[in-house]
Amino acid sequence: MKKLSLGLASIVIALAATPDDATLRKMATDNGIQAIPKSQAQIQALIEKTAPDAKSNKSTKEKIELGKMLYFDPRLSKSNLISCNTCHNLGLGGADLVPAAIGHKWQPNGQHLNSPTVYNSVFNEIQFWDGRAAHLAEQAQGPIENPVEMAASKELIVERITSIPEYVDAFKKAYGANTKITFELIASTIGVYERTLITPSPFDDFLNGDNNALNKEQKEGLAIFLDKGCTTCHTGVNLGGSMQPFAVVKDYQFSSLGGFKGNKDGLVKAPTLRNVAQTAPYFHNGAFWNLTDAIKEMGSIQLGIDIDDTETKKIASFLQSLTGRKPKVEYPMLPDSTAKTPKPEFQ
Amino acid sequence: MKKLSLGLASIVIALAATPDDATLRKMATDNGIQAIPKSQAQIQALIEKTAPDAKSNKSTKEKIELGKMLYFDPRLSKSNLISCNTCHNLGLGGADLVPAAIGHKWQPNGQHLNSPTVYNSVFNEIQFWDGRAAHLAEQAQGPIENPVEMAASKELIVERITSIPEYVDAFKKAYGANTKITFELIASTIGVYERTLITPSPFDDFLNGDNNALNKEQKEGLAIFLDKGCTTCHTGVNLGGSMQPFAVVKDYQFSSLGGFKGNKDGLVKAPTLRNVAQTAPYFHNGAFWNLTDAIKEMGSIQLGIDIDDTETKKIASFLQSLTGRKPKVEYPMLPDSTAKTPKPEFQ
Repeated sequence: MKKLSLGLASIVIALAATPDDATLRKMATDNGIQAIPKSQAQIQALIEKTAPDAKSNKSTKEKIELGKMLYFDPRLSKSNLISCNTCHNLGLGGADLVPAAIGHKWQPNGQHLNSPTVYNSVFNEIQFWDGRAAHLAEQAQGPIENPVEMAASKELIVERITSIPEYVDAFKKAYGANTKITFELIASTIGVYERTLITPSPFDDFLNGDNNALNKEQKEGLAIFLDKGCTTCHTGVNLGGSMQPFAVVKDYQFSSLGGFKGNKDGLVKAPTLRNVAQTAPYFHNGAFWNLTDAIKEMGSIQLGIDIDDTETKKIASFLQSLTGRKPKVEYPMLPDSTAKTPKPEFQ
Repeated sequence: MKKLSLGLASIVIALAATPDDATLRKMATDNGIQAIPKSQAQIQALIEKTAPDAKSNKSTKEKIELGKMLYFDPRLSKSNLISCNTCHNLGLGGADLVPAAIGHKWQPNGQHLNSPTVYNSVFNEIQFWDGRAAHLAEQAQGPIENPVEMAASKELIVERITSIPEYVDAFKKAYGANTKITFELIASTIGVYERTLITPSPFDDFLNGDNNALNKEQKEGLAIFLDKGCTTCHTGVNLGGSMQPFAVVKDYQFSSLGGFKGNKDGLVKAPTLRNVAQTAPYFHNGAFWNLTDAIKEMGSIQLGIDIDDTETKKIASFLQSLTGRKPKVEYPMLPDSTAKTPKPEFQ
């Protein structure tokens, strides 16, 4: 009997028309999804409200410009070869198109962890796959010091930056003449720049009232996404970004790759779905290259359901609508090193 | 007697006033130095005249934009991690701030060769330290295929690019609907973009008539530079870029590092001096970090003279005037990979 009634329920859902636009919007909102607002002022207000480090280090034009230079500067790595942008490439959806980050000495990430997109990362509740950083100012310190990523030390980076007069001047302009350039301030300034990397998408346009921003298949996909319960984890302004249980119903078939177990409670940061169509491969250890395979795997191990091919295609189509409009980035011309600038090391 | 007369000659030069601006300009021109012209049209004409590949692949807006995307795209490497811009970083004077290029699997260049600046490289008579490429279209193929650089194959790169519909469309727009995307065309398109990377400098402004573009020390440095005979190799529009004998008078003290011997005739490409103040370390194997040390070494091994500290400082000051104004680069947003795009490989 149970089987039969499930069968009937499926038929009812399959036959049900996609809700009208207003209803779809209400359903999304009721499930906790929040649009990136329309105006720059509203976006800024949302960032200030969301980011814990926005309170202690307010955004200014000078800090953003300096943060951008630091973000692109490979001298923040021991070797002079790896910048933040290497693994979080603004031209590639904010990520790096490899399963696990490759860093200093060509070492893969120790737990085979995939580089998450930097775009909209300010809207994550917490940073890193295991949620160990509260905000971007803290996150930006991690890769610089990680021996398999940029492999530098706090002291080296402070010495490099303070050896370059244009950087010293830029810090003075941004923070005042008496500012001490610390490792923490360098990372926090990178965070200020990263807060500008917001990508409003057709899905936001839809939520903000433009019925034509999504096509029929995308609306159907959204309805299925909501109906299946994907918003259990993928909700909020980032459709993700909070700590969640992983492999709830069924084991993840690639769990041995890297052996990552999440935080002390076994929770894993649910990645944002914004720009997901650009940031393959998927999951914390980058084991899935196809978005459709990833959708099915999520249904299986998180929700205990089979998402069929048609549904998967429609969800994927909806997820495409989360590919956002990227801010224009003028590539920064970086200041010259001096005789005092510590040299690169490769071992 | 010979010794005495040489001594007197030196005194005469030391006491001589720096020539006036018009004379300095004439001396520079008489020594074969050529300014980057003032107007964009004149620069374009000079490029067309200079670059052998400009005849077979004329510049258009579409090709330049496509070439820029390719230049910044790490999918042109086997690993998805290394782009042209990795070693020829437009934010770092067009080079990479390491002695020898580091590529695939963290391998240094086999002959410990230093990455030359991409800026103004169109004005080199010939490309690579051993001059094995006639122009940029040919040069751009080299690093992509080099196992210690981007480590890809022709076939892999063509497969990657043709698997990405936006790239296919961009090639059609640039070259016509029936264009076959070949490895050679990909490299040639990168060359078209590189031809735009021209950096007019204060020295050009001076040559073009602005007496105030150089300060007193820089003019003195220029006079010494001309007087010592540096233009024997460092001349033309790029103050370098042609094949020249190396270690003419005396052995180069770091010749064993990498063991590079030049081309079959022992000639080495004299690097451009444009942006030299930004592109340490120096010489083909990146053994010198300080510009002043490099100047003295050149005097010693190429000209058989001692350049004293005061002269060296003035020459360095003149070389600073070759740091040019960089074109604004809007960082390209790269097209999405597809399920057909060959995956990265790390071994």
